[in-house]
Amino acid sequence: MTAVPMIELWRGGIRESVHTGHAVVFGPGGIELAWGDPEAVIFPRSSVKMIQALPLLESGAADAAGLSESHLAFACASHSGAALHRDSAAQWLAHLGLHEQDLRCGAHMPQDPDEKKRLTCSDEAPCQLHNNCSGKHVGFLTLNQHIGGGSEYVEVSHPIQQSIKTTFEEVTDVTSPGFGIDGCSAPNFATTVTGLARAMQLFAAANPEGSTRERAAARLTRAMASFPELVAGEGRACTELMRAMGGRVAVKTGAEAVYVAILPEQKRGIALKIVDGGTRGAEAAITALLIRLGVLDRNHPVVEKRLSGAQKNWRGLITGEMRLAPGFG
Amino acid sequence: MTAVPMIELWRGGIRESVHTGHAVVFGPGGIELAWGDPEAVIFPRSSVKMIQALPLLESGAADAAGLSESHLAFACASHSGAALHRDSAAQWLAHLGLHEQDLRCGAHMPQDPDEKKRLTCSDEAPCQLHNNCSGKHVGFLTLNQHIGGGSEYVEVSHPIQQSIKTTFEEVTDVTSPGFGIDGCSAPNFATTVTGLARAMQLFAAANPEGSTRERAAARLTRAMASFPELVAGEGRACTELMRAMGGRVAVKTGAEAVYVAILPEQKRGIALKIVDGGTRGAEAAITALLIRLGVLDRNHPVVEKRLSGAQKNWRGLITGEMRLAPGFG
Repeated sequence: MTAVPMIELWRGGIRESVHTGHAVVFGPGGIELAWGDPEAVIFPRSSVKMIQALPLLESGAADAAGLSESHLAFACASHSGAALHRDSAAQWLAHLGLHEQDLRCGAHMPQDPDEKKRLTCSDEAPCQLHNNCSGKHVGFLTLNQHIGGGSEYVEVSHPIQQSIKTTFEEVTDVTSPGFGIDGCSAPNFATTVTGLARAMQLFAAANPEGSTRERAAARLTRAMASFPELVAGEGRACTELMRAMGGRVAVKTGAEAVYVAILPEQKRGIALKIVDGGTRGAEAAITALLIRLGVLDRNHPVVEKRLSGAQKNWRGLITGEMRLAPGFG
Repeated sequence: MTAVPMIELWRGGIRESVHTGHAVVFGPGGIELAWGDPEAVIFPRSSVKMIQALPLLESGAADAAGLSESHLAFACASHSGAALHRDSAAQWLAHLGLHEQDLRCGAHMPQDPDEKKRLTCSDEAPCQLHNNCSGKHVGFLTLNQHIGGGSEYVEVSHPIQQSIKTTFEEVTDVTSPGFGIDGCSAPNFATTVTGLARAMQLFAAANPEGSTRERAAARLTRAMASFPELVAGEGRACTELMRAMGGRVAVKTGAEAVYVAILPEQKRGIALKIVDGGTRGAEAAITALLIRLGVLDRNHPVVEKRLSGAQKNWRGLITGEMRLAPGFG
């Protein structure tokens, strides 16, 4: 099966652009809804940071290091590199007795407008603390300290990445067909859309007082939903969507237009991929599915911003609109 | 017919994302090559600025105002808002005895890093001179002064836009199925991919000493190819591609992933649209077609930058590559 149209952009009554994709809603009994090819192989990219954080909790490293719920949320973040995020990474590193140089994520200019302006106007270079994945990497370092691993923790043969691979294949119930190197230099294991949705369902159904894995999964879901500003940042879709749902749902984006959602009350997980990698399409598509499942109010302002609002130009004139493709959402 | 895969992004030996589209190469005898649906209706967006500039020349307004070849190139620009572009717009307006407030394109932060930094760090707001379409709009104002039209020159009923509509339908040989409002507030008339490619072929085949239309078209093509830094800006695909082809070919992008090319030596025109609106896909696809038609050296650095180079992450590690989809290019 091929990808299906999900999100359309209209201008002057004519369809101008279309995003096609694959999506799966996975419930306690298996696949409940699907569009496109549920078995399409994708790189989940940063949408799986909560899976990559499972070994941190399951190993006992998180509790041994005295991590708080906000640390756990930050470990699952693709953040904006705002002062809040930069300082969170710095303080956590200091708590471990480690330094910015111990990170292996690389540096890039942050997305946060204020911090970006501060760096630009002072000619200060961004550092690895600003990297949108710095929280995940400090999480890796916390686990690495616990197990006494070597410094090159992003190598695929490193025990950290091998434990993530094992965990990832268990929660997706799919043998990963391969891995790629992510923007932050960590391995990213491929899976199917169904595998990713199944993993999100496992998080959604996890009993906070259940097995080691269930407790870890439930804690991570609650942490993400409780600290939406740490998981992304002001003005970002993940933060705004989680706020709009009042802590009831955790959502996470990944590069190249992946989106996942964890719905504990319904014990359902969602995974979707827009095949062209266009973020606006993924944000609109997850918004539509959250409305469909009844966890996001269609009248909330975030829906207008990400999905149903008029497209405007530099003079504020309405130029067009986004629409759900027939048959989707 | 549906859009076909054109550009793929690979990571770790697995195809991660795909851009699909439509493309037509139009020669003296008609369609020579086509992918996807040649009759797909698209908004050409800024790819048709050279068509929108035809009435400026054909009316005699350009010569009456003493416009140089660089003015003509700038009228066809989607520029970066660098100091060069800002000043070009300001000087042309002053030459007409007009002011920034006479523009109707709206203001936005320029793409040029230096000018963006200057504005950001001085808390100076961008003005309409920075709008990537300001050259086109000063062109509109030049024609408007010549014909004594009203101030609201972007309204679709204004004589300027009506003359553009007539011209557009003539050179595309397609009755436009409708129009949308562009980012710069001007009407943008829809056409087919074939219609757009046919218009580019008309530009390519125009005799510099032929009819009024042919002379205008040939002058605009030569102007664009001669001043690539005015048409886009440093680091931008249009500028780099035109430089790489040494003035032999004019190319122009449009928002939502449209690209056109005018090849005078071959009397051929190209038009393409990536259906998801992803710019990286359009840039890669036009690069591939320019190589295929023998006007762009496949070993030129711009090819590595836009099409064939390795994708690298923040630490410089190779994470993947772009590839032509089977059957394209």
